Amino acid sequence: MDTTVTSPLARKLGCFVALSDAELSVLERLQVRRRPFAAGREIVHQGQSDRAVYILVSGWVCSYKTLPDGARQIVDFQIPGDFLGLRSTLLQTSDHSIESVTDIQVCEVPSGDLLAAFAGTPRLATAVLWAASRDEAMVVEHLAGLGRRAAPQRVAHFLLELGARLALVGFGTKAGYACPLTQYLLADALGLSAVHINRVLRQLRELGLVTFRDGTVVFDDYGGLVALADFDPTYLDQERPLLT
Amino acid sequence: MDTTVTSPLARKLGCFVALSDAELSVLERLQVRRRPFAAGREIVHQGQSDRAVYILVSGWVCSYKTLPDGARQIVDFQIPGDFLGLRSTLLQTSDHSIESVTDIQVCEVPSGDLLAAFAGTPRLATAVLWAASRDEAMVVEHLAGLGRRAAPQRVAHFLLELGARLALVGFGTKAGYACPLTQYLLADALGLSAVHINRVLRQLRELGLVTFRDGTVVFDDYGGLVALADFDPTYLDQERPLLT
Repeated sequence: MDTTVTSPLARKLGCFVALSDAELSVLERLQVRRRPFAAGREIVHQGQSDRAVYILVSGWVCSYKTLPDGARQIVDFQIPGDFLGLRSTLLQTSDHSIESVTDIQVCEVPSGDLLAAFAGTPRLATAVLWAASRDEAMVVEHLAGLGRRAAPQRVAHFLLELGARLALVGFGTKAGYACPLTQYLLADALGLSAVHINRVLRQLRELGLVTFRDGTVVFDDYGGLVALADFDPTYLDQERPLLT
Repeated sequence: MDTTVTSPLARKLGCFVALSDAELSVLERLQVRRRPFAAGREIVHQGQSDRAVYILVSGWVCSYKTLPDGARQIVDFQIPGDFLGLRSTLLQTSDHSIESVTDIQVCEVPSGDLLAAFAGTPRLATAVLWAASRDEAMVVEHLAGLGRRAAPQRVAHFLLELGARLALVGFGTKAGYACPLTQYLLADALGLSAVHINRVLRQLRELGLVTFRDGTVVFDDYGGLVALADFDPTYLDQERPLLT
């Protein structure tokens, strides 16, 4: 099996930059140091100085900020093919914590190796800059959601965004996807209570739009849900590679 | 006068990567195409396909998302040395609008020129990746602020962050800075009403912490304000360049 084609990160970056075989093997060499973590483990602690970045190979994690009063704001969830702590490596200190939601496999990449790979493979650096831009676009969407979207739209937008992200790396379709997130995690990400999340999910199900039950999201009416959330996936997808 | 030393962008990137003379001149050559815009002009419209990125040379702009119901969420303000629409160039479509707050000068950089500069000057690409990471860290802070900070802490954190950003490019100190933002703009950024912003600013002034009046922010008690906001500037500053 050709791992250069099947690594979720290669699949994701390939949407932006048509990577050559040489560039793909640099990318794969970065991913040799694999480590498992059990569910519920803290991978990175807010404030720590990082000397490594992680690439998530399998499983789900969440990134969150803890405020001085102990409140937690989940910034985003990461899925296979996502970097963990990329921003932190560049900023030299982690501005957030990262915790595994499920059992996961990560590749640990020393910061120096990553920067050396960028220097030797500039198109790879551009592809990673794209991935970082896409991550930022997601945080901006979450900011707008938290600031300005009503609860049903916020939940619907979130489920659609996750679906589009998973589809890009081969873990979902417009029919739905497997999703290990609890209503408590959704609540901490969306600024709602778990009770409120539960009520909104029931509403969306009764409207025949989406069913999230037993670890599975089923889009009962994808178009209808997109219309409700006014979901525009252009910030997630690429129509064509920018660098060919 | 040596413009390679004085361009705000060179000053900012220089905090992360000790740029060589050759790298600095690539950066300066990107900034030859200058354009003025008057205050209140839309520079980029949400949804447009971008073929250029802008570097802000002087003045202030704001980036915002407009939601389907017309509500506006300001994502951030940009100051000299900041990229405008960098994310949009990489994502090929702008996920937000950009409007000048004051009269501004920008450099217009065609996307192709920027990507070519990255390919030929990988350390520059890394420096820009750092700048993009720092921008994302700010959006994450705003997300946490909107989701979890009380109004006085939110306003205090915002004024301190702006101060630290301006100081890095030579436009502010721990004594204060010139700030053209209205209370309406602050309100749209911080998810508060203009009346609420006004009340919080009065509170902070009466506590002897900060005075924002007549376009000037004066830190009356910088340490006290930092303590109130629990402001930790590690996500904005570099103790040392990562690439030397």
